[in-house]
Amino acid sequence: MRVRLFQGPLKAGTPAENLEHMAEVAARQEGGLLVSPEMFLSGYNIGREAAARLAEPVDGPSARRAAMIARATGTALLYGYPERGEDGQVYNAAILIDRTGRTLLNYRKCHLFTDLDRAMFQPGPAHAPVVELDGIRVGVLICYDVEFPEAVRALALEGAQLVAVPTALMQPYDVIARTIVPARAIENQVFIAYANHCGREGELDYCGLSCVVGPEGQDLARAGRGEEVVGAEIDLAILDRSRPLYTYLADRRPELYAPLAHGDPA
Amino acid sequence: MRVRLFQGPLKAGTPAENLEHMAEVAARQEGGLLVSPEMFLSGYNIGREAAARLAEPVDGPSARRAAMIARATGTALLYGYPERGEDGQVYNAAILIDRTGRTLLNYRKCHLFTDLDRAMFQPGPAHAPVVELDGIRVGVLICYDVEFPEAVRALALEGAQLVAVPTALMQPYDVIARTIVPARAIENQVFIAYANHCGREGELDYCGLSCVVGPEGQDLARAGRGEEVVGAEIDLAILDRSRPLYTYLADRRPELYAPLAHGDPA
Repeated sequence: MRVRLFQGPLKAGTPAENLEHMAEVAARQEGGLLVSPEMFLSGYNIGREAAARLAEPVDGPSARRAAMIARATGTALLYGYPERGEDGQVYNAAILIDRTGRTLLNYRKCHLFTDLDRAMFQPGPAHAPVVELDGIRVGVLICYDVEFPEAVRALALEGAQLVAVPTALMQPYDVIARTIVPARAIENQVFIAYANHCGREGELDYCGLSCVVGPEGQDLARAGRGEEVVGAEIDLAILDRSRPLYTYLADRRPELYAPLAHGDPA
Repeated sequence: MRVRLFQGPLKAGTPAENLEHMAEVAARQEGGLLVSPEMFLSGYNIGREAAARLAEPVDGPSARRAAMIARATGTALLYGYPERGEDGQVYNAAILIDRTGRTLLNYRKCHLFTDLDRAMFQPGPAHAPVVELDGIRVGVLICYDVEFPEAVRALALEGAQLVAVPTALMQPYDVIARTIVPARAIENQVFIAYANHCGREGELDYCGLSCVVGPEGQDLARAGRGEEVVGAEIDLAILDRSRPLYTYLADRRPELYAPLAHGDPA
């Protein structure tokens, strides 16, 4: 399966405009999976009022339009958006739609980042299940989530082979895209597809550096600082070669890890 | 506190010879903590028979000689050795002795690496507690342990500020020293002192690349490929500056991490 990362757009527009931009990118090379950034539909740094105003249900008009784009282009889509839950709350969500227009999963960000997120969103209640897409087991996280080794590990233990991550990584955090994301791929023996914004949004200066990283930490695709679409093939034969060298999933000692699941830091 | 890493010696000798080599290095710059590699006393790639023959109790003659070196040089010592447990088993252990000659902790490697380790050692039963050394809270892991995010997280949750790691990292695993170790420092907001072998030992070609890494993943000290002593100051003011930028320990969601502590991978 080919995965592409849509590092853009530079300016947040309306959800409808951003969806048409995504449709153009999806159409340029049909098939596979196109990952767009966190809060792609609305922009990320928009504040509580705009997030609440632009929030839509998981089956709202934007999702229905995205399903049409997926069918028309034969491309699976993963993108971030502000979700209005059935409980009335607003979540920082990502939806994965397959090429037939079916929603495979909708995930609500569990690890909220600073007051930026907390001003706009409720935290998600749980990690999303791993789903199968074109024969590959895919897990989804959003931005700050992937910086927690526990979050990626939980998906790897469910059998994820690819973890796809819409993100909104800003300065001074280049080290996340350069070091943390490759480490997650190595330590869990998964591919990671990390799709970031670029340019400025309010006081935020996004890092770009979207990447597809392989299970030995290698860059299979890496964007620069500006608007760009990059892509790589998710070839499971790469996992077959690396997993005998990196035997972490078999060598864990879960009976020693109970402290991770309870209590606060000292 | 100044931490130094003794990347050497190139050739395994007897425990007594290696201890005298360590004494010379310790004396060259008194004080602080000197970290030597995994199985420093005996060599690492020595096989079951030699490991069993050279194994000593935690309070054996080598530990008593090391305590004398620590007192004579005013230097705390951490080094790896084959331990003969009170249960008769052989463990891949590391002992931390303070500058007064007191043993602060003895740790038995929990995550055994391939048949290399398994041919020689029983796995350790638990992570060692975090101890205080010169006002710094120190945890100890051995080699492969540090590649498991769970192991470092457990120490961070106990309040570790420095994780010291005797290791024996060989080709083709440069990426561990370059990417995984810095990631562990960032994600746990700790310093990591990673002391490796260099040169060849049997069929193993050690990576060198010993390092002291800070909590933003920065190299505070980094060795090359050959025998070398490198060092850096463990300045807690660096943590004070980085922890407000990397708020992982406060933002964890332990209620979501139960799957990490039980069960096998799918």
